[in-house]
Amino acid sequence: MTVLVFIDPSAPAGRVADASAPQLSVLDQGVTRGDGVFESALYKGGAVRKLDMHLARLQSSAQLSDLEVPAEDAWRAAVATAVAQYDDEARRSASAADAPGGEAEAVVKLIATRGSEGSGHGTSWVTVSPAPALGRKQRESGVRVLFLDRGYDSTVAERAPWLLMGAKTLSYAVNMAALRYARSNGADDVIFTSSDGRVLEGPTSTVLLATRDGDEKRLITPTLRTGILPGTTQGALFDQAEEAGWKLGYGPVVPQDLLEADAVWLVSSVRLLTPVTSIDGEAISTDGELTAELSGLIEAIE
Amino acid sequence: MTVLVFIDPSAPAGRVADASAPQLSVLDQGVTRGDGVFESALYKGGAVRKLDMHLARLQSSAQLSDLEVPAEDAWRAAVATAVAQYDDEARRSASAADAPGGEAEAVVKLIATRGSEGSGHGTSWVTVSPAPALGRKQRESGVRVLFLDRGYDSTVAERAPWLLMGAKTLSYAVNMAALRYARSNGADDVIFTSSDGRVLEGPTSTVLLATRDGDEKRLITPTLRTGILPGTTQGALFDQAEEAGWKLGYGPVVPQDLLEADAVWLVSSVRLLTPVTSIDGEAISTDGELTAELSGLIEAIE
Repeated sequence: MTVLVFIDPSAPAGRVADASAPQLSVLDQGVTRGDGVFESALYKGGAVRKLDMHLARLQSSAQLSDLEVPAEDAWRAAVATAVAQYDDEARRSASAADAPGGEAEAVVKLIATRGSEGSGHGTSWVTVSPAPALGRKQRESGVRVLFLDRGYDSTVAERAPWLLMGAKTLSYAVNMAALRYARSNGADDVIFTSSDGRVLEGPTSTVLLATRDGDEKRLITPTLRTGILPGTTQGALFDQAEEAGWKLGYGPVVPQDLLEADAVWLVSSVRLLTPVTSIDGEAISTDGELTAELSGLIEAIE
Repeated sequence: MTVLVFIDPSAPAGRVADASAPQLSVLDQGVTRGDGVFESALYKGGAVRKLDMHLARLQSSAQLSDLEVPAEDAWRAAVATAVAQYDDEARRSASAADAPGGEAEAVVKLIATRGSEGSGHGTSWVTVSPAPALGRKQRESGVRVLFLDRGYDSTVAERAPWLLMGAKTLSYAVNMAALRYARSNGADDVIFTSSDGRVLEGPTSTVLLATRDGDEKRLITPTLRTGILPGTTQGALFDQAEEAGWKLGYGPVVPQDLLEADAVWLVSSVRLLTPVTSIDGEAISTDGELTAELSGLIEAIE
């Protein structure tokens, strides 16, 4: 079950459409050129988590891509319409977990494309669909990860804005290929490294590591200067962790740092905090206590 | 006017659909992930140029992307249906240039995506639409080019297959961003360079250069080992040029080689042979005689 709502100037609350029917032009540059931007948010317990942050990053991605996208109000209205419709359908299909406010998790996707060539306007829509079971499973069991070279050095974002580093575009073929490569090679996920040996990010996640030193707990993530996406969950979690007494670090991170950390996680809006259990086939340190604490902090993010 | 034909197992000659109506699911990974492959061929004088080469490269791109795409027969049938339909519509709309066999040029696009997640099958279609006037104009007037860093070094393709170098995927957001960057900076097009200073390719073209030494004419293009796309027009032109007595070279090419060449072109299936008139704001050598000769050879390609 997927609910679909287009942003449409003639329908201020958004135009509900049938997601199981064809709704997009084959001439849309979203498909012909992967030319557009997107966000994936979690809908759970009756609320879309971190919607403000997702809307801000969508605007930032659009700006980096010279793309005009609808204003935040229009997105909020379409999201509200979409989740209300999703709740209605869940109520009708009726398992208790699926009911609004229940434990069921859904993915809210916001997509904005450059539209059909020459049309002069983009295409924008919101979908809501059940969260994949695999992500929830991996959140519990952890993931085995491969380091894969992303091909770029860690200074490329500063010198080459046309590479759209830091923009979450629809051109995700390489991200998907990296995940397939991992799955064909005994792993579940990927941590990209730069050609000059820095840790970057996962294909659909941000990398976090923790170190303990006596009572001091430190939470570290790679610096954005490497051109990685600013993680919304990482950002919100850092705020929570700081309040809870953690030290924070934004560093140049190298692979060895992950191998020596007390714990490593991949974090993303839908899968949330996912422990990394091995890298390149070698088990790494995990820490159930830290995972439980940080998962609790993430649960508290609105 | 665009003609659209889907490849559909239930319609051996392809399923004609209305390109002006929505025809694609918003859940198709072609749009949600830029996950698919494509080709653009030229339809002119009643024939689709180099169809064999385009079909071969489409299969190669698909293989690099772990993507199952329809067999060549199905593509050929859909292309035949699409151009026949295009000719019919051109006949009705009736300018002489648009008539089949006339001088009008059309773009035949072949696209295959990974389809909707979990559907287990891809989506594949062919469109035929009039060739953009800009390309034809640039073929005559030439283009001003900027060198832009592609971020990758020239050995990345060999060590990182997950980057899909050499596959023509739908994830073209960076290619489009580079072209916009050029247009915002007084140029028309781009030649990408590697981070270690090699000439790569244009965002939608292959780079050629020529040198004259007495009677000897040499035609050079960057080596495929850099991870660039194998250009179908470059490949066919090299065969023709060799027969016509040219020496050929596939080299590591550096920017200085282009600045010192007797002529530089961008070559692609639809825009054909396009002279480069300046690089980074500096005029470079052009050669009308060589351009005329090579254009003649390209015209002769079937």
